[in-house]
Amino acid sequence: MTPGKVLVAQGGGPTAVINQSLVGVVLEARRQLGVERVYGARHGVRGIVNEDFFDLTQETSHNLELVAGTPGSALGSTRDKPDLKYCQEIFQVLKAHGIGHFFYIGGNDSSDTVRIVSEEATRAGYPLRCIHIPKTIDNDLVGNDHTPGFPSAARFVAQAFAGANLDNAALPGVYLAVVMGRHAGFLTAASALGRKYDDDGPHLIYLPERGFSVERFLADVKATYDRLGRCIVAVSEGIHDHSGTPIAAQLAQDLERDAHGNVQLSGSGALADLLCDEIKARLGLKRVRGDTLGYLQRSFLGCVSDVDQREAREVGEKAVQYGFWSGRDGSVAIRRTGHYAADYTLLPLAEVAGRTRTMEDAFIAPSGTDVTDAFRLYLRPLLGSGMPDAYRLRPNTVAKVLKP
Amino acid sequence: MTPGKVLVAQGGGPTAVINQSLVGVVLEARRQLGVERVYGARHGVRGIVNEDFFDLTQETSHNLELVAGTPGSALGSTRDKPDLKYCQEIFQVLKAHGIGHFFYIGGNDSSDTVRIVSEEATRAGYPLRCIHIPKTIDNDLVGNDHTPGFPSAARFVAQAFAGANLDNAALPGVYLAVVMGRHAGFLTAASALGRKYDDDGPHLIYLPERGFSVERFLADVKATYDRLGRCIVAVSEGIHDHSGTPIAAQLAQDLERDAHGNVQLSGSGALADLLCDEIKARLGLKRVRGDTLGYLQRSFLGCVSDVDQREAREVGEKAVQYGFWSGRDGSVAIRRTGHYAADYTLLPLAEVAGRTRTMEDAFIAPSGTDVTDAFRLYLRPLLGSGMPDAYRLRPNTVAKVLKP
Repeated sequence: MTPGKVLVAQGGGPTAVINQSLVGVVLEARRQLGVERVYGARHGVRGIVNEDFFDLTQETSHNLELVAGTPGSALGSTRDKPDLKYCQEIFQVLKAHGIGHFFYIGGNDSSDTVRIVSEEATRAGYPLRCIHIPKTIDNDLVGNDHTPGFPSAARFVAQAFAGANLDNAALPGVYLAVVMGRHAGFLTAASALGRKYDDDGPHLIYLPERGFSVERFLADVKATYDRLGRCIVAVSEGIHDHSGTPIAAQLAQDLERDAHGNVQLSGSGALADLLCDEIKARLGLKRVRGDTLGYLQRSFLGCVSDVDQREAREVGEKAVQYGFWSGRDGSVAIRRTGHYAADYTLLPLAEVAGRTRTMEDAFIAPSGTDVTDAFRLYLRPLLGSGMPDAYRLRPNTVAKVLKP
Repeated sequence: MTPGKVLVAQGGGPTAVINQSLVGVVLEARRQLGVERVYGARHGVRGIVNEDFFDLTQETSHNLELVAGTPGSALGSTRDKPDLKYCQEIFQVLKAHGIGHFFYIGGNDSSDTVRIVSEEATRAGYPLRCIHIPKTIDNDLVGNDHTPGFPSAARFVAQAFAGANLDNAALPGVYLAVVMGRHAGFLTAASALGRKYDDDGPHLIYLPERGFSVERFLADVKATYDRLGRCIVAVSEGIHDHSGTPIAAQLAQDLERDAHGNVQLSGSGALADLLCDEIKARLGLKRVRGDTLGYLQRSFLGCVSDVDQREAREVGEKAVQYGFWSGRDGSVAIRRTGHYAADYTLLPLAEVAGRTRTMEDAFIAPSGTDVTDAFRLYLRPLLGSGMPDAYRLRPNTVAKVLKP
């Protein structure tokens, strides 16, 4: 018989809605027959090996609902990427505490951890049900129409560029902003959803799915500026040259690398500053401003898609249902139905684990610096209700008197 | 008799609510007896000397209401700071077009322009009523309890830090973000309103009203990190050493200066990056992230204080009422009543023009790195209704089994 305790944890970067998934797990698990306790591990897998657990059976449902509406990872998170030995330690702790169901909310690295722990349990003949729950603002999990966390971050990016466009129209110049996303350009592409009028920015969108050339970039900016007298550019932090070297890495003096061996891209304004310097130096343009949207994209309190909220809640709830009734381990995935509804499925862990989805060619315009209508149709319903809108004065020009 | 045309213009940096003031002027002016036309100058004073006007009498009130709710300067703005000759040109255009009432929405530089134009009209014996309407996210106009645009920007900053605090609690480290404000620290201080629980960040707030020492800063960060295992820092872009040299200027290779001779502080991530590099190099801390809130602070579409919206609308409406009924030129100012209501007055232009307000000592904690309760009491009602709130899980720790 499966042991009666449930464990849930959160891994990787926090999002606006990851606590919805947590609370979906906790409330649904608490109503399952035979569940003695629902534990939450503090700071992901690190909290598991340290036996650092909260007993969420003793948390009020009222407070859980309030936490669900709060961004960030309420249990704490980690960047640890466990190897086999680490996963064996995780398994020993789960066994020692009588955990029968393990739910891990995270991205593709987290799904890989779930896969290894699942294999360890099978090898040991220990009855453990392991379910991965999707989460990432990068939208880079394979097998998913989209991933919880991405729609809210995309909404933030769209609203940021819509506002930057209004600001730049009032005080013209070049405005460039760097958006998160190492390999997948979905979040950067979301900037296009900030446009309303024909001449609205962003006028140029640079994605990691396409090779980046500084010469081509400068020519694009110049052409836009010559045409409109201003130019707004969205740049993915992950842009790289045709040989695959990140543009950010070409300039950084000493590169910080994370536990996964990746160059640290966020938490610095260097890429935006470099590109602005190039524009000023090579094109001789005066008012050139660079921003890096930074951690606000995933953490800003008060910018959330209601569609994202309810789907994040449901993947948590579905995870428990699959865990108790499907008889197999897996990764919960979102499927799209019609225009627009969401449905869920349970994928084998090996199909999702450690793999990275990037933007489909059909979402990227032939120019390589814009998105297609297919992408707009894909993203718009995910942004949710109540998207703010921008309006303009209509021109009723007055005849000149002094210099007609 | 006063000529029957009204002119309105917008100057300086756009805000979330400057179009409320514009529409307040237009709708109130359109209902005044004897008003033939209401013109709007494109891009501030530059549009005036170029006779680049929209006839806002021919704009629907419906669209005006939609524009009022849109951030940015709907007429366009300018960074031009007119000298006497420029102001004389402005006056010649106003005369040629039969303008009897001139309303200019802007900060302290704009109020100075209104003052000079007013003096020119008086000297020429031309019946022109000139009213300055306050606007600035920096909150640095003297004679005002606060200025329209500041509350919405302050709300953005508070929400940004509230979210960054949740993110940083989940993945601990040092997080530093640079906030706009060259001489006045109000906007940086607003980060304190993002705190809820005792250990919430920002833990350190550096304002331009206090001299900045890198040594002291590093000691502050270390002490906070040692105490909490994490540290969130809010830094004003205008911080300077005790001799008055901006910290940003100490490191920038080639300084860009604006028309006012000021070093360009925004539109670059350099200051945040420098401070983060110091923390990494000198304190040996690993996870150090720097953001620059950048133009989002004043332009983000969808973060606005409803209190700010209605006050911005009213200063525009009051400006027209003062302009038509008070018999004198001046600058509209906001006064505070009770806890909390706003009232308005008309100040002499010379009292406001070209002067800069900074934070009162009573708003800054003795440590120099925090705000006082007086500041919280001052700012909270301005942030408006519906401020998002953050909630936590309450600790119910589980006993360890393997390593008790």
